[in-house]
Amino acid sequence: MIQRSDPIGVFDSGVGGLTVLSALRNRFPAENYVYLGDTARLPYGTKSASTVERYAVNAAGHLASHGIKLLVVACNTASSYALDALGATVPVPVVGVVEPGVRAALATGARRIGVIGTEGTIRSNAYQDTLADRAPSVEVDAAACPLLVPLAEEGWGDHPVTDQVARHYLAPLLDWGVQTVILGCTHYPLLRQSLQRVVGPSVELVDSAKAVAETVAQDHHALTSTGGDGEGAVRIELTDASDRFLRITRAILGSAPEQLEVVDIDRA
Amino acid sequence: MIQRSDPIGVFDSGVGGLTVLSALRNRFPAENYVYLGDTARLPYGTKSASTVERYAVNAAGHLASHGIKLLVVACNTASSYALDALGATVPVPVVGVVEPGVRAALATGARRIGVIGTEGTIRSNAYQDTLADRAPSVEVDAAACPLLVPLAEEGWGDHPVTDQVARHYLAPLLDWGVQTVILGCTHYPLLRQSLQRVVGPSVELVDSAKAVAETVAQDHHALTSTGGDGEGAVRIELTDASDRFLRITRAILGSAPEQLEVVDIDRA
Repeated sequence: MIQRSDPIGVFDSGVGGLTVLSALRNRFPAENYVYLGDTARLPYGTKSASTVERYAVNAAGHLASHGIKLLVVACNTASSYALDALGATVPVPVVGVVEPGVRAALATGARRIGVIGTEGTIRSNAYQDTLADRAPSVEVDAAACPLLVPLAEEGWGDHPVTDQVARHYLAPLLDWGVQTVILGCTHYPLLRQSLQRVVGPSVELVDSAKAVAETVAQDHHALTSTGGDGEGAVRIELTDASDRFLRITRAILGSAPEQLEVVDIDRA
Repeated sequence: MIQRSDPIGVFDSGVGGLTVLSALRNRFPAENYVYLGDTARLPYGTKSASTVERYAVNAAGHLASHGIKLLVVACNTASSYALDALGATVPVPVVGVVEPGVRAALATGARRIGVIGTEGTIRSNAYQDTLADRAPSVEVDAAACPLLVPLAEEGWGDHPVTDQVARHYLAPLLDWGVQTVILGCTHYPLLRQSLQRVVGPSVELVDSAKAVAETVAQDHHALTSTGGDGEGAVRIELTDASDRFLRITRAILGSAPEQLEVVDIDRA
Protein backbone atom coordinates (compact mmCIF):
# COMPACT_ATOMS: atom_id res chain seq x y z
CA MET A 1 0.00 0.00 0.00
CA ILE A 2 1.61 3.24 -1.16
CA GLN A 3 1.52 6.06 1.41
CA ARG A 4 1.86 9.73 0.58
CA SER A 5 4.63 9.97 3.19
CA ASP A 6 6.69 7.24 1.50
CA PRO A 7 9.91 8.62 0.02
CA ILE A 8 10.54 9.35 -3.63
CA GLY A 9 13.54 7.35 -4.82
CA VAL A 10 16.05 9.10 -7.05
CA PHE A 11 18.74 7.08 -8.78
CA ASP A 12 21.82 8.07 -10.72
CA SER A 13 25.11 6.44 -11.65
CA GLY A 14 26.82 9.15 -9.62
CA VAL A 15 26.21 12.51 -8.04
CA GLY A 16 25.16 14.42 -11.19
CA GLY A 17 21.57 13.32 -10.50
CA LEU A 18 21.61 15.52 -7.41
CA THR A 19 20.72 18.31 -9.87
CA VAL A 20 17.44 16.41 -10.41
CA LEU A 21 16.99 15.89 -6.66
CA SER A 22 17.44 19.64 -6.13
CA ALA A 23 14.83 20.46 -8.79
CA LEU A 24 12.39 17.99 -7.21
CA ARG A 25 12.95 19.46 -3.73
CA ASN A 26 12.35 22.97 -5.04
CA ARG A 27 9.08 21.83 -6.52
CA PHE A 28 7.98 19.41 -3.74
CA PRO A 29 9.75 20.52 -0.58
CA ALA A 30 7.53 18.52 1.80
CA GLU A 31 8.41 15.18 0.19
CA ASN A 32 10.85 12.71 1.68
CA TYR A 33 13.62 11.55 -0.62
CA VAL A 34 16.14 8.78 -0.79
CA TYR A 35 18.88 9.24 -3.36
CA LEU A 36 21.17 6.46 -4.54
CA GLY A 37 24.34 7.30 -6.46
CA ASP A 38 26.18 4.24 -7.78
CA THR A 39 29.54 5.98 -7.45
CA ALA A 40 31.45 2.71 -7.04
CA ARG A 41 30.54 1.66 -10.59
CA LEU A 42 30.20 4.97 -12.41
CA PRO A 43 30.37 6.10 -15.11
CA TYR A 44 27.59 4.27 -16.94
CA GLY A 45 27.91 6.46 -20.04
CA THR A 46 30.91 4.67 -21.51
CA LYS A 47 29.68 1.14 -20.79
CA SER A 48 27.57 -1.31 -22.75
CA ALA A 49 23.78 -1.62 -22.64
CA SER A 50 23.88 -4.97 -20.85
CA THR A 51 26.19 -3.75 -18.08
CA VAL A 52 24.14 -0.56 -17.60
CA GLU A 53 20.92 -2.55 -17.37
CA ARG A 54 22.41 -5.00 -14.86
CA TYR A 55 23.68 -2.18 -12.63
CA ALA A 56 20.46 -0.14 -12.88
CA VAL A 57 18.21 -3.09 -12.01
CA ASN A 58 20.42 -3.91 -9.03
CA ALA A 59 20.32 -0.27 -7.82
CA ALA A 60 16.56 0.06 -8.31
CA GLY A 61 16.00 -3.09 -6.30
CA HIS A 62 17.98 -1.53 -3.47
CA LEU A 63 15.89 1.67 -3.60
CA ALA A 64 12.66 -0.36 -3.70
CA SER A 65 13.69 -1.95 -0.40
CA HIS A 66 13.36 1.55 1.13
CA GLY A 67 9.63 1.50 0.41
CA ILE A 68 9.69 4.24 -2.22
CA LYS A 69 6.43 5.32 -3.86
CA LEU A 70 7.99 6.61 -7.09
CA LEU A 71 11.34 5.98 -8.79
CA VAL A 72 12.99 8.84 -10.64
CA VAL A 73 15.81 7.62 -12.85
CA ALA A 74 17.99 10.73 -12.84
CA CYS A 75 20.57 9.16 -15.12
CA ASN A 76 20.29 9.62 -18.85
CA THR A 77 22.23 6.49 -19.73
CA ALA A 78 20.10 4.30 -17.44
CA SER A 79 16.93 6.04 -18.69
CA SER A 80 18.00 5.34 -22.24
CA TYR A 81 19.01 1.71 -21.85
CA ALA A 82 17.12 0.32 -18.89
CA LEU A 83 13.76 2.07 -18.37
CA ASP A 84 11.70 -0.94 -19.44
CA ALA A 85 13.75 -3.29 -17.29
CA LEU A 86 13.37 -0.92 -14.33
CA GLY A 87 9.61 -0.72 -14.84
CA ALA A 88 9.53 -4.51 -14.61
CA THR A 89 11.73 -4.53 -11.48
CA VAL A 90 10.10 -2.05 -9.10
CA PRO A 91 6.41 -2.14 -8.10
CA VAL A 92 5.98 1.68 -8.34
CA PRO A 93 5.82 4.20 -11.19
CA VAL A 94 9.15 4.95 -12.89
CA VAL A 95 10.01 8.35 -14.36
CA GLY A 96 13.06 8.67 -16.59
CA VAL A 97 14.71 11.83 -17.86
CA VAL A 98 14.27 11.29 -21.59
CA GLU A 99 10.50 11.86 -21.94
CA PRO A 100 10.54 15.03 -19.76
CA GLY A 101 13.51 16.43 -21.67
CA VAL A 102 11.74 15.82 -24.97
CA ARG A 103 8.56 17.50 -23.76
CA ALA A 104 10.49 20.55 -22.57
CA ALA A 105 12.43 20.79 -25.82
CA LEU A 106 9.28 20.61 -27.94
CA ALA A 107 7.69 23.29 -25.73
CA THR A 108 10.36 25.74 -26.92
CA GLY A 109 8.82 25.53 -30.42
CA ALA A 110 12.20 24.76 -31.99
CA ARG A 111 12.18 23.07 -35.42
CA ARG A 112 15.80 21.89 -35.11
CA ILE A 113 16.61 20.18 -31.85
CA GLY A 114 20.01 18.92 -30.82
CA VAL A 115 20.78 16.37 -28.12
CA ILE A 116 24.09 16.09 -26.29
CA GLY A 117 24.98 13.31 -23.86
CA THR A 118 27.28 10.43 -23.07
CA GLU A 119 28.27 7.90 -25.72
CA GLY A 120 25.75 5.43 -24.28
CA THR A 121 22.85 7.88 -24.27
CA ILE A 122 23.48 9.06 -27.82
CA ARG A 123 24.15 5.58 -29.21
CA SER A 124 20.91 4.26 -27.64
CA ASN A 125 18.92 6.70 -29.83
CA ALA A 126 16.46 7.11 -26.94
CA TYR A 127 16.12 10.88 -27.35
CA GLN A 128 16.17 10.74 -31.14
CA ASP A 129 13.47 8.05 -31.27
CA THR A 130 11.25 9.76 -28.69
CA LEU A 131 11.48 13.08 -30.55
CA ALA A 132 10.67 11.39 -33.85
CA ASP A 133 7.69 9.72 -32.25
CA ARG A 134 6.28 12.86 -30.57
CA ALA A 135 7.01 15.35 -33.34
CA PRO A 136 7.85 13.72 -36.66
CA SER A 137 8.29 17.08 -38.43
CA VAL A 138 10.99 18.32 -36.06
CA GLU A 139 14.56 17.76 -37.23
CA VAL A 140 16.93 16.14 -34.76
CA ASP A 141 20.68 15.76 -34.53
CA ALA A 142 22.81 14.48 -31.68
CA ALA A 143 26.41 14.59 -30.45
CA ALA A 144 28.19 12.42 -27.90
CA CYS A 145 30.41 14.53 -25.63
CA PRO A 146 32.51 12.11 -23.53
CA LEU A 147 34.80 14.74 -22.00
CA LEU A 148 32.05 16.92 -20.54
CA VAL A 149 31.36 14.72 -17.49
CA PRO A 150 35.03 14.68 -16.40
CA LEU A 151 35.18 18.47 -16.92
CA ALA A 152 32.05 18.96 -14.80
CA GLU A 153 33.46 16.70 -12.09
CA GLU A 154 36.72 18.66 -12.14
CA GLY A 155 34.69 21.80 -11.39
CA TRP A 156 35.59 23.43 -14.72
CA GLY A 157 32.05 24.59 -15.48
CA ASP A 158 33.20 28.04 -16.49
CA HIS A 159 36.66 27.44 -17.92
CA PRO A 160 38.35 28.17 -21.27
CA VAL A 161 39.23 24.49 -21.76
CA THR A 162 35.57 23.57 -21.34
CA ASP A 163 34.62 26.21 -23.91
CA GLN A 164 37.13 24.74 -26.33
CA VAL A 165 35.98 21.14 -25.79
CA ALA A 166 32.31 22.11 -26.02
CA ARG A 167 32.99 24.03 -29.24
CA HIS A 168 34.62 20.90 -30.68
CA TYR A 169 31.59 18.73 -29.90
CA LEU A 170 28.89 21.31 -30.71
CA ALA A 171 30.32 22.74 -33.94
CA PRO A 172 28.38 20.35 -36.22
CA LEU A 173 25.10 21.15 -34.43
CA LEU A 174 25.76 24.90 -34.64
CA ASP A 175 26.70 24.72 -38.33
CA TRP A 176 23.45 22.87 -38.92
CA GLY A 177 21.43 25.66 -37.29
CA VAL A 178 20.33 24.04 -34.03
CA GLN A 179 17.71 26.09 -32.13
CA THR A 180 17.34 24.13 -28.89
CA VAL A 181 19.85 21.79 -27.26
CA ILE A 182 18.75 19.13 -24.77
CA LEU A 183 21.34 18.68 -22.02
CA GLY A 184 21.03 14.90 -22.07
CA CYS A 185 23.21 14.30 -19.02
CA THR A 186 22.59 15.35 -15.45
CA HIS A 187 26.14 16.68 -15.15
CA TYR A 188 25.73 19.20 -17.92
CA PRO A 189 23.81 21.86 -15.95
CA LEU A 190 27.10 22.28 -14.04
CA LEU A 191 28.66 23.42 -17.35
CA ARG A 192 25.84 25.79 -18.25
CA GLN A 193 27.99 28.94 -18.35
CA SER A 194 30.50 27.48 -20.79
CA LEU A 195 27.82 25.78 -22.88
CA GLN A 196 25.66 28.90 -23.19
CA ARG A 197 28.73 30.91 -24.20
CA VAL A 198 29.51 28.38 -26.92
CA VAL A 199 26.01 28.07 -28.39
CA GLY A 200 25.27 31.80 -28.10
CA PRO A 201 22.26 33.59 -26.60
CA SER A 202 19.76 32.58 -29.29
CA VAL A 203 20.03 28.83 -28.65
CA GLU A 204 18.01 27.50 -25.75
CA LEU A 205 19.52 24.90 -23.42
CA VAL A 206 16.96 22.49 -21.97
CA ASP A 207 17.88 21.24 -18.51
CA SER A 208 16.32 17.84 -17.87
CA ALA A 209 16.41 18.33 -14.09
CA LYS A 210 13.65 20.96 -14.16
CA ALA A 211 11.78 19.04 -16.84
CA VAL A 212 11.65 15.94 -14.63
CA ALA A 213 10.10 17.88 -11.74
CA GLU A 214 7.51 19.24 -14.17
CA THR A 215 6.66 15.75 -15.39
CA VAL A 216 6.29 14.42 -11.85
CA ALA A 217 3.91 17.31 -11.11
CA GLN A 218 1.83 16.58 -14.21
CA ASP A 219 1.78 12.79 -14.29
CA HIS A 220 2.04 11.79 -10.64
CA HIS A 221 0.04 14.48 -8.89
CA ALA A 222 -1.69 12.02 -6.57
CA LEU A 223 1.66 10.87 -5.17
CA THR A 224 3.14 14.22 -4.21
CA SER A 225 2.27 15.81 -0.90
CA THR A 226 2.77 19.40 -1.99
CA GLY A 227 0.14 20.45 0.52
CA GLY A 228 2.35 19.37 3.44
CA ASP A 229 4.14 21.81 5.67
CA GLY A 230 7.83 22.06 6.32
CA GLU A 231 10.70 20.29 4.67
CA GLY A 232 10.87 16.56 4.07
CA ALA A 233 13.86 14.43 4.92
CA VAL A 234 16.59 13.68 2.39
CA ARG A 235 18.75 10.60 2.68
CA ILE A 236 21.70 10.24 0.35
CA GLU A 237 23.33 6.88 -0.26
CA LEU A 238 26.46 6.38 -2.31
CA THR A 239 28.16 3.10 -3.19
CA ASP A 240 31.54 4.83 -2.87
CA ALA A 241 32.36 8.02 -0.99
CA SER A 242 35.73 9.26 -2.17
CA ASP A 243 36.71 12.87 -1.41
CA ARG A 244 35.97 13.64 -5.04
CA PHE A 245 32.33 12.59 -4.90
CA LEU A 246 31.78 14.35 -1.57
CA ARG A 247 33.26 17.55 -3.02
CA ILE A 248 30.93 17.40 -6.05
CA THR A 249 27.96 16.57 -3.79
CA ARG A 250 28.61 19.72 -1.78
CA ALA A 251 29.06 21.77 -4.95
CA ILE A 252 25.65 20.70 -6.31
CA LEU A 253 23.69 20.87 -3.06
CA GLY A 254 25.35 24.07 -1.86
CA SER A 255 26.13 22.44 1.50
CA ALA A 256 27.15 19.12 3.02
CA PRO A 257 24.23 16.65 3.03
CA GLU A 258 22.66 15.93 6.42
CA GLN A 259 22.26 12.19 5.94
CA LEU A 260 24.87 10.45 3.85
CA GLU A 261 25.66 6.78 4.00
CA VAL A 262 27.91 4.45 2.02
CA VAL A 263 26.07 1.31 0.97
CA ASP A 264 27.27 -1.93 -0.62
CA ILE A 265 24.70 -3.06 -3.18
CA ASP A 266 26.67 -5.17 -5.62
CA ARG A 267 26.40 -8.31 -3.53
CA ALA A 268 22.65 -7.92 -3.14
CA MET B 1 53.22 -26.53 -8.82
CA ILE B 2 54.09 -23.54 -10.98
CA GLN B 3 54.97 -24.40 -14.58
CA ARG B 4 57.02 -22.24 -16.90
CA SER B 5 54.25 -22.51 -19.46
CA ASP B 6 51.62 -21.11 -17.05
CA PRO B 7 50.41 -17.70 -18.15
CA ILE B 8 51.44 -14.38 -16.66
CA GLY B 9 48.34 -12.57 -15.36
CA VAL B 10 48.08 -8.85 -16.05
CA PHE B 11 45.40 -6.83 -14.32
CA ASP B 12 44.17 -3.27 -14.81
CA SER B 13 41.00 -1.36 -14.06
CA GLY B 14 40.59 -0.89 -17.79
CA VAL B 15 42.49 -1.12 -21.04
CA GLY B 16 45.32 1.32 -20.21
CA GLY B 17 47.23 -1.62 -18.73
CA LEU B 18 47.53 -3.04 -22.24
CA THR B 19 50.53 -0.68 -22.53
CA VAL B 20 52.14 -2.85 -19.82
CA LEU B 21 51.07 -6.06 -21.58
CA SER B 22 52.68 -4.79 -24.79
CA ALA B 23 55.93 -3.99 -22.99
CA LEU B 24 55.94 -7.46 -21.41
CA ARG B 25 55.31 -9.16 -24.76
CA ASN B 26 58.13 -7.19 -26.36
CA ARG B 27 60.45 -8.38 -23.62
CA PHE B 28 59.10 -11.95 -23.21
CA PRO B 29 57.42 -12.89 -26.49
CA ALA B 30 57.28 -16.64 -25.79
CA GLU B 31 55.21 -16.22 -22.61
CA ASN B 32 51.49 -16.88 -22.44
CA TYR B 33 49.40 -14.03 -21.03
CA VAL B 34 45.94 -13.54 -19.65
CA TYR B 35 44.87 -9.91 -19.26
CA LEU B 36 41.90 -8.81 -17.19
CA GLY B 37 40.52 -5.28 -17.60
CA ASP B 38 37.78 -4.43 -15.10
CA THR B 39 36.08 -2.12 -17.60
CA ALA B 40 32.64 -2.58 -16.01
CA ARG B 41 33.81 -0.87 -12.82
CA LEU B 42 36.49 1.52 -14.04
CA PRO B 43 37.80 4.03 -13.27
CA TYR B 44 39.48 3.11 -10.00
CA GLY B 45 41.38 6.40 -9.82
CA THR B 46 38.50 8.51 -8.52
CA LYS B 47 37.25 5.95 -6.01
CA SER B 48 38.09 5.29 -2.36
CA ALA B 49 40.81 2.97 -1.06
CA SER B 50 38.30 0.44 0.28
CA THR B 51 36.38 0.17 -3.00
CA VAL B 52 39.60 -0.16 -5.01
CA GLU B 53 40.88 -2.88 -2.69
CA ARG B 54 37.61 -4.81 -2.89
CA TYR B 55 37.54 -4.67 -6.70
CA ALA B 56 41.23 -5.53 -7.07
CA VAL B 57 41.05 -8.56 -4.75
CA ASN B 58 37.99 -9.81 -6.63
CA ALA B 59 39.75 -9.40 -9.98
CA ALA B 60 42.96 -11.03 -8.80
CA GLY B 61 41.00 -14.01 -7.54
CA HIS B 62 39.52 -14.39 -11.00
CA LEU B 63 42.97 -14.27 -12.63
CA ALA B 64 44.33 -16.76 -10.10
CA SER B 65 41.67 -19.22 -11.26
CA HIS B 66 43.41 -19.22 -14.66
CA GLY B 67 46.48 -20.81 -13.06
CA ILE B 68 48.79 -17.81 -13.51
CA LYS B 69 52.39 -18.04 -12.33
CA LEU B 70 52.87 -14.30 -11.76
CA LEU B 71 50.46 -11.40 -11.29
CA VAL B 72 51.37 -8.03 -12.77
CA VAL B 73 49.18 -5.27 -11.38
CA ALA B 74 49.25 -2.89 -14.33
CA CYS B 75 47.08 -0.35 -12.56
CA ASN B 76 48.67 2.41 -10.57
CA THR B 77 45.68 2.98 -8.32
CA ALA B 78 45.40 -0.72 -7.45
CA SER B 79 49.18 -0.95 -7.02
CA SER B 80 49.04 2.02 -4.67
CA TYR B 81 46.11 0.93 -2.53
CA ALA B 82 45.89 -2.82 -2.75
CA LEU B 83 49.29 -4.45 -3.35
CA ASP B 84 49.50 -5.96 0.14
CA ALA B 85 45.95 -7.27 -0.06
CA LEU B 86 46.69 -8.77 -3.46
CA GLY B 87 49.85 -10.42 -2.18
CA ALA B 88 47.71 -12.08 0.49
CA THR B 89 45.06 -13.14 -2.05
CA VAL B 90 46.99 -14.89 -4.80
CA PRO B 91 49.47 -17.73 -4.27
CA VAL B 92 52.01 -16.38 -6.78
CA PRO B 93 54.43 -13.43 -6.86
CA VAL B 94 52.80 -10.01 -7.38
CA VAL B 95 54.49 -7.17 -9.25
CA GLY B 96 52.99 -3.68 -9.06
CA VAL B 97 53.89 -0.63 -11.12
CA VAL B 98 55.08 1.66 -8.32
CA GLU B 99 58.38 0.01 -7.41
CA PRO B 100 59.48 -0.38 -11.07
CA GLY B 101 58.55 3.24 -11.82
CA VAL B 102 60.55 4.44 -8.84
CA ARG B 103 63.60 2.39 -9.86
CA ALA B 104 63.46 3.74 -13.40
CA ALA B 105 63.08 7.32 -12.19
CA LEU B 106 66.06 7.03 -9.82
CA ALA B 107 68.13 5.52 -12.64
CA THR B 108 67.84 8.83 -14.53
CA GLY B 109 69.93 10.46 -11.80
CA ALA B 110 67.39 13.23 -11.27
CA ARG B 111 67.45 15.10 -7.95
CA ARG B 112 63.94 16.47 -8.38
CA ILE B 113 61.37 13.87 -9.34
CA GLY B 114 57.72 14.57 -10.07
CA VAL B 115 54.89 12.05 -10.07
CA ILE B 116 51.64 12.47 -11.97
CA GLY B 117 48.65 10.14 -11.66
CA THR B 118 45.02 9.77 -10.71
CA GLU B 119 43.63 11.33 -7.56
CA GLY B 120 43.73 7.93 -5.85
CA THR B 121 47.34 7.20 -6.79
CA ILE B 122 48.61 10.60 -5.69
CA ARG B 123 46.54 10.68 -2.49
CA SER B 124 47.81 7.22 -1.50
CA ASN B 125 51.38 8.63 -1.37
CA ALA B 126 52.62 5.26 -2.66
CA TYR B 127 55.15 6.79 -5.07
CA GLN B 128 56.16 9.56 -2.68
CA ASP B 129 56.75 7.11 0.19
CA THR B 130 58.65 4.61 -1.97
CA LEU B 131 60.90 7.36 -3.37
CA ALA B 132 61.55 8.70 0.13
CA ASP B 133 62.43 5.20 1.28
CA ARG B 134 64.77 4.35 -1.62
CA ALA B 135 66.46 7.74 -1.99
CA PRO B 136 65.89 10.05 0.99
CA SER B 137 67.98 12.84 -0.54
CA VAL B 138 65.90 13.10 -3.72
CA GLU B 139 63.20 15.78 -3.67
CA VAL B 140 59.71 14.68 -4.70
CA ASP B 141 56.55 16.48 -5.69
CA ALA B 142 53.32 15.10 -7.13
CA ALA B 143 50.25 16.27 -9.05
CA ALA B 144 46.89 14.58 -9.53
CA CYS B 145 45.69 14.96 -13.14
CA PRO B 146 42.08 13.68 -13.26
CA LEU B 147 41.36 14.83 -16.82
CA LEU B 148 44.25 13.03 -18.47
CA VAL B 149 42.63 9.57 -18.49
CA PRO B 150 39.45 10.82 -20.23
CA LEU B 151 41.61 12.72 -22.75
CA ALA B 152 43.65 9.57 -23.46
CA GLU B 153 40.48 7.52 -23.85
CA GLU B 154 39.11 10.14 -26.24
CA GLY B 155 42.21 9.63 -28.40
CA TRP B 156 43.44 13.19 -27.86
CA GLY B 157 47.03 12.18 -27.14
CA ASP B 158 48.39 14.87 -29.45
CA HIS B 159 45.83 17.66 -29.18
CA PRO B 160 45.96 21.35 -28.19
CA VAL B 161 43.35 20.82 -25.45
CA THR B 162 45.54 18.10 -23.92
CA ASP B 163 48.53 20.46 -24.03
CA GLN B 164 46.48 23.10 -22.22
CA VAL B 165 45.18 20.70 -19.56
CA ALA B 166 48.63 19.16 -19.03
CA ARG B 167 50.16 22.63 -18.69
CA HIS B 168 47.56 23.43 -16.02
CA TYR B 169 48.44 20.33 -13.98
CA LEU B 170 52.22 20.38 -14.57
CA ALA B 171 52.89 24.11 -14.11
CA PRO B 172 53.72 23.80 -10.37
CA LEU B 173 56.15 20.93 -11.05
CA LEU B 174 57.82 22.86 -13.88
CA ASP B 175 58.11 26.05 -11.80
CA TRP B 176 59.75 23.94 -9.08
CA GLY B 177 62.37 22.67 -11.55
CA VAL B 178 61.34 19.04 -11.97
CA GLN B 179 63.94 16.94 -13.85
CA THR B 180 62.14 13.60 -14.26
CA VAL B 181 58.39 12.94 -14.29
CA ILE B 182 57.00 9.48 -13.51
CA LEU B 183 53.92 8.73 -15.63
CA GLY B 184 52.04 7.17 -12.74
CA CYS B 185 49.11 5.93 -14.79
CA THR B 186 49.10 3.35 -17.56
CA HIS B 187 47.04 5.65 -19.78
CA TYR B 188 49.61 8.39 -19.83
CA PRO B 189 51.98 6.87 -22.41
CA LEU B 190 49.11 7.47 -24.86
CA LEU B 191 49.56 11.22 -24.17
CA ARG B 192 53.32 11.19 -24.51
CA GLN B 193 53.46 13.64 -27.41
CA SER B 194 51.46 16.31 -25.61
CA LEU B 195 53.20 15.70 -22.30
CA GLN B 196 56.71 15.88 -23.76
CA ARG B 197 55.78 19.12 -25.54
CA VAL B 198 54.58 20.61 -22.26
CA VAL B 199 57.54 19.59 -20.09
CA GLY B 200 60.11 20.36 -22.78
CA PRO B 201 62.99 18.23 -24.11
CA SER B 202 65.16 18.41 -20.98
CA VAL B 203 62.65 16.70 -18.68
CA GLU B 204 62.58 12.93 -18.86
CA LEU B 205 59.25 11.08 -18.81
CA VAL B 206 59.41 7.67 -17.14
CA ASP B 207 56.96 5.18 -18.58
CA SER B 208 56.06 2.55 -16.00
CA ALA B 209 55.13 -0.01 -18.68
CA LYS B 210 58.75 -0.51 -19.74
CA ALA B 211 59.90 -0.30 -16.14
CA VAL B 212 57.59 -3.17 -15.16
CA ALA B 213 59.00 -5.44 -17.88
CA GLU B 214 62.49 -4.61 -16.64
CA THR B 215 61.56 -5.52 -13.05
CA VAL B 216 60.02 -8.82 -14.12
CA ALA B 217 63.25 -9.61 -15.98
CA GLN B 218 65.39 -8.78 -12.93
CA ASP B 219 63.31 -10.18 -10.09
CA HIS B 220 61.46 -13.11 -11.64
CA HIS B 221 63.98 -14.48 -14.06
CA ALA B 222 63.20 -18.10 -13.16
CA LEU B 223 59.57 -17.69 -14.18
CA THR B 224 60.04 -16.30 -17.66
CA SER B 225 60.59 -18.62 -20.56
CA THR B 226 62.58 -16.22 -22.72
CA GLY B 227 64.42 -19.14 -24.22
CA GLY B 228 61.23 -20.45 -25.85
CA ASP B 229 60.58 -20.16 -29.54
CA GLY B 230 57.65 -18.46 -31.23
CA GLU B 231 54.96 -16.27 -29.78
CA GLY B 232 52.91 -17.15 -26.74
CA ALA B 233 49.14 -16.90 -26.58
CA VAL B 234 47.40 -13.78 -25.34
CA ARG B 235 43.92 -13.95 -23.89
CA ILE B 236 42.15 -10.69 -23.09
CA GLU B 237 39.19 -10.60 -20.74
CA LEU B 238 37.11 -7.49 -20.09
CA THR B 239 34.22 -7.12 -17.64
CA ASP B 240 32.50 -4.79 -20.14
CA ALA B 241 33.09 -4.52 -23.87
CA SER B 242 31.55 -1.28 -25.09
CA ASP B 243 32.63 0.05 -28.48
CA ARG B 244 34.70 2.61 -26.64
CA PHE B 245 36.87 0.05 -24.86
CA LEU B 246 37.28 -2.06 -27.98
CA ARG B 247 38.38 1.05 -29.90
CA ILE B 248 41.00 1.90 -27.26
CA THR B 249 42.13 -1.73 -27.13
CA ARG B 250 42.80 -1.68 -30.87
CA ALA B 251 44.58 1.68 -30.57
CA ILE B 252 46.99 0.37 -27.94
CA LEU B 253 47.63 -3.07 -29.45
CA GLY B 254 47.78 -1.79 -33.03
CA SER B 255 45.26 -4.44 -34.11
CA ALA B 256 42.15 -6.24 -32.89
CA PRO B 257 42.99 -8.82 -30.22
CA GLU B 258 42.79 -12.46 -31.25
CA GLN B 259 41.12 -13.76 -28.11
CA LEU B 260 38.77 -11.38 -26.33
CA GLU B 261 36.05 -12.44 -23.95
CA VAL B 262 33.60 -10.59 -21.73
CA VAL B 263 33.55 -12.04 -18.21
CA ASP B 264 31.29 -11.41 -15.23
CA ILE B 265 33.39 -11.39 -12.07
CA ASP B 266 31.41 -9.24 -9.64
CA ARG B 267 29.22 -12.11 -8.52
CA ALA B 268 32.19 -14.34 -7.88
